[in-house]
Amino acid sequence: MDNRLIFLTNDDGVSAPGLARLIEVVREFGHVVVVAPESAQSGMSHAITMNHPLFLRKVRTEPGLEVYACSGTPVDCVKMALDHLLTNRTADGGGDRTPDLICSGINHGSNAAINILYSGTMGAAIEGGFYDVPSIGFSLTDHSLDADFEAAGVVARDIVAGILEARPATPLCLNVNIPVGRPEEIRGVRVCRQCRGHWREEFFCRRNPVGRDYYWLTGAFQNAEPEATDTDEWALAHGYVSVVPIQVDLTRYEQIASLGAVLNHES
Amino acid sequence: MDNRLIFLTNDDGVSAPGLARLIEVVREFGHVVVVAPESAQSGMSHAITMNHPLFLRKVRTEPGLEVYACSGTPVDCVKMALDHLLTNRTADGGGDRTPDLICSGINHGSNAAINILYSGTMGAAIEGGFYDVPSIGFSLTDHSLDADFEAAGVVARDIVAGILEARPATPLCLNVNIPVGRPEEIRGVRVCRQCRGHWREEFFCRRNPVGRDYYWLTGAFQNAEPEATDTDEWALAHGYVSVVPIQVDLTRYEQIASLGAVLNHES
Repeated sequence: MDNRLIFLTNDDGVSAPGLARLIEVVREFGHVVVVAPESAQSGMSHAITMNHPLFLRKVRTEPGLEVYACSGTPVDCVKMALDHLLTNRTADGGGDRTPDLICSGINHGSNAAINILYSGTMGAAIEGGFYDVPSIGFSLTDHSLDADFEAAGVVARDIVAGILEARPATPLCLNVNIPVGRPEEIRGVRVCRQCRGHWREEFFCRRNPVGRDYYWLTGAFQNAEPEATDTDEWALAHGYVSVVPIQVDLTRYEQIASLGAVLNHES
Repeated sequence: MDNRLIFLTNDDGVSAPGLARLIEVVREFGHVVVVAPESAQSGMSHAITMNHPLFLRKVRTEPGLEVYACSGTPVDCVKMALDHLLTNRTADGGGDRTPDLICSGINHGSNAAINILYSGTMGAAIEGGFYDVPSIGFSLTDHSLDADFEAAGVVARDIVAGILEARPATPLCLNVNIPVGRPEEIRGVRVCRQCRGHWREEFFCRRNPVGRDYYWLTGAFQNAEPEATDTDEWALAHGYVSVVPIQVDLTRYEQIASLGAVLNHES
């Protein structure tokens, strides 16, 4: 068990309480390497830094734990770790190898339903899954910086233990969302599907000190299937942890034939 | 035809040549409103700006065309247009209403295969699709700023005309990629599926003038199914325009049952 190498990242930044809790949770399972963003990167989705260089800074080292801060996005952190840091070193704790598990989070805020598309936490977890390693994104449905991560920590520990023991086949990427509440209030865990729906925005508009209008996104999620009982939104609304297995083929297969009849041609 | 309202955005920024070409292409089909990023936003994926305000600036107005620059991401541009600009005005050219078509691009560089996940162009096109409007992302497989957009312009015109005439059912979001070459070299159009594969990075590492190491992403796409003939990568490699219809349910349905056996429980 001590030979395991576990990689962590997040999108709320290297100093976020949710990451601190995740570090404590996974340390019992192996050597932990963290590369997390220097600053908050909420809403950064699967963004990568193409037009600027990246910087990497060692923040903390102690037996069983190394923490680095990266100037880039959550996905940059994963690439920096998996394609550089962990493959170009002879240091302690596992040396030059691929991790046994990748975790991202614990995010401050829900990444259920279509939120997965905007989420830096899940961008990193999805990227981690591309390395043929089990990859899990954890999110708590509470945006506040002083959210109570006790129940989320218990849930994360159970799921990490379950995945490390069961060793499901890869590719394996999980979107885990945890409802707000005390540990004893959580009703269970439901592996389920992503709920359909989208955000509609209202722009908070004000004028700044030099007379220029500025806008702030302030939207609301519109659940397109509030009656469905097999979705992540249903699970969370009923006190369950939602676990959605993730894939990244965005093809809408059922439209290929009908669109082909309109657009296909040979010149 | 003149009553149509067409919304455009991109990820290379409001001054990119690919956007200029797209504006010229779609003007014949209706009134055009552009909200594009102030600066280059390549690789911004589905990112949104949560921690900063957004600014909007009118760049150009002439009969049949309005161009705005937005300080945010490509997805911010779509939200700003669809949830604010186009729904809060009484100006000329259609007034307060949803566009008849949304186009993003023409991107400088391929967004085929897994590139769709990192792409700001496709982030915007996907977001546009959430408004129940046909939404098309166009990309040319040439990253250079002085790429030749002549063939891409011809292709974009044909596809826009085809979609406006056929009016396929929504949701409709298309990832259109156009191979490099003269118009007469393009062999046709193929509606196809997203090719499997991912990027592996090599980090270009140097030391900056104050002695700090910096890193630059420089990866290569690894095609996981080079023999498949029904993918976007195959189409592009063989001189065809690829058109992939897009959806955003990321659930890996085939894992729900087996993972449920490991993780599901009631407390």
